[in-house]
Amino acid sequence: MTQPDAPVADLFARTALASWKQNLDRLDRVFAAASDDQLQQEVAPGKNRLFYLLGHLVAVHDRMLPLLRLGARLHPELDEPFLTKADRTAPDTITPASLRAAWTEVNSALTSAMESLPAAAWLERHDAISAEDFDREPLRNRLSVLLSRGGHVQFHTGQIRLIIKQG
Amino acid sequence: MTQPDAPVADLFARTALASWKQNLDRLDRVFAAASDDQLQQEVAPGKNRLFYLLGHLVAVHDRMLPLLRLGARLHPELDEPFLTKADRTAPDTITPASLRAAWTEVNSALTSAMESLPAAAWLERHDAISAEDFDREPLRNRLSVLLSRGGHVQFHTGQIRLIIKQG
Repeated sequence: MTQPDAPVADLFARTALASWKQNLDRLDRVFAAASDDQLQQEVAPGKNRLFYLLGHLVAVHDRMLPLLRLGARLHPELDEPFLTKADRTAPDTITPASLRAAWTEVNSALTSAMESLPAAAWLERHDAISAEDFDREPLRNRLSVLLSRGGHVQFHTGQIRLIIKQG
Repeated sequence: MTQPDAPVADLFARTALASWKQNLDRLDRVFAAASDDQLQQEVAPGKNRLFYLLGHLVAVHDRMLPLLRLGARLHPELDEPFLTKADRTAPDTITPASLRAAWTEVNSALTSAMESLPAAAWLERHDAISAEDFDREPLRNRLSVLLSRGGHVQFHTGQIRLIIKQG
C-alpha cells in the first residue's frame, strides 16, 4: 500500500470498528441492566432464554478470534452448551457470573486485537476461506466477518429488547 | 484521491455494500414468505405486528435517500403511521400489497443509488451533520449510516424470525 492510501483506508476501517463497538456497547448495557433472574426469562414464549443468548454470543465472538486470525480462542468449552445444543436441552454448566465475565473478557480481547490491525489488513482473507478461493472472491475478507457479526449482535439485540427495556 | 487509493477504497465500499444487500435480501425473502394474514401477527405477545415492522422499515429506508444525499424521498406519507405513531393506535391506511410494493420500490432506488456512489464518497458527511461538525467528527459519514441501518435491518429481522421460519 502506498502512503496516499492510508487516510482513506484508515477512515473506512475506523468507521466500521466504531459501528461494531457501538453495537456491542449497547448490548453490553442491556445485559448489565438485566438481573440474573431476568437472564432466565425467554425473549418470547418458548424461545431462547437471555442466558442462552448471552452464552451464544460469547461463543460466536470467541470464535471470531481465530476466524479473523487474531489469536486462539479463550472459551471453547462454550460451544457445546451454546452453539451445538439448543437452549434447555441440558442443565446449565456455567454460572451467570462466570458467563458475564467471559462476555467481557472475550469482547475486550477481540476489540483490542481488532484495534491493533492495520487498516488494509481488514481486506485480507478470513480463516474460513482458502487463499485460492479468496483470489476469486476478495469480498470474503476480515471486514465481511466484522460486518456480519455486528449484524448478528443486532439480530439478537432486537429479540432481547422485547423483554429488557433498561440499559 | 490519487490513483493508488482506488482498489483499497473500492474493496472497502464493495464489502460494506455486499453486507447491506445480503441483510436486505434475507429479510426480503422472509417478508415474501409471509402471507398477508401472517403480516397481521405480532412478533411476540403485545409487540409490533409484522405489518407495522414492514412499514417501519420502508419509512426508515425511504429516509435514507435524503440522509445519504442520494435524492428525494419516495413515500413521506409512511412516516406518520409507521414512525410517529405506535402500532395499532390508528386503522391501517395502506394495503399489504401497496406496502410490499413500496418496500421493493424504496430498496431498489436506494441500493441502485448506493451502487453508483464512488467509493470515497462513503467517507463524506451524511445530511444530518453540518460541515463544521463533520470536520471534527469525520466518522459521521455516509458509511456510518449504511452500517447502522444494516444493523437496524438485522435488529428487526431477529424479531421477525421469532414467528416466520420460512424464507
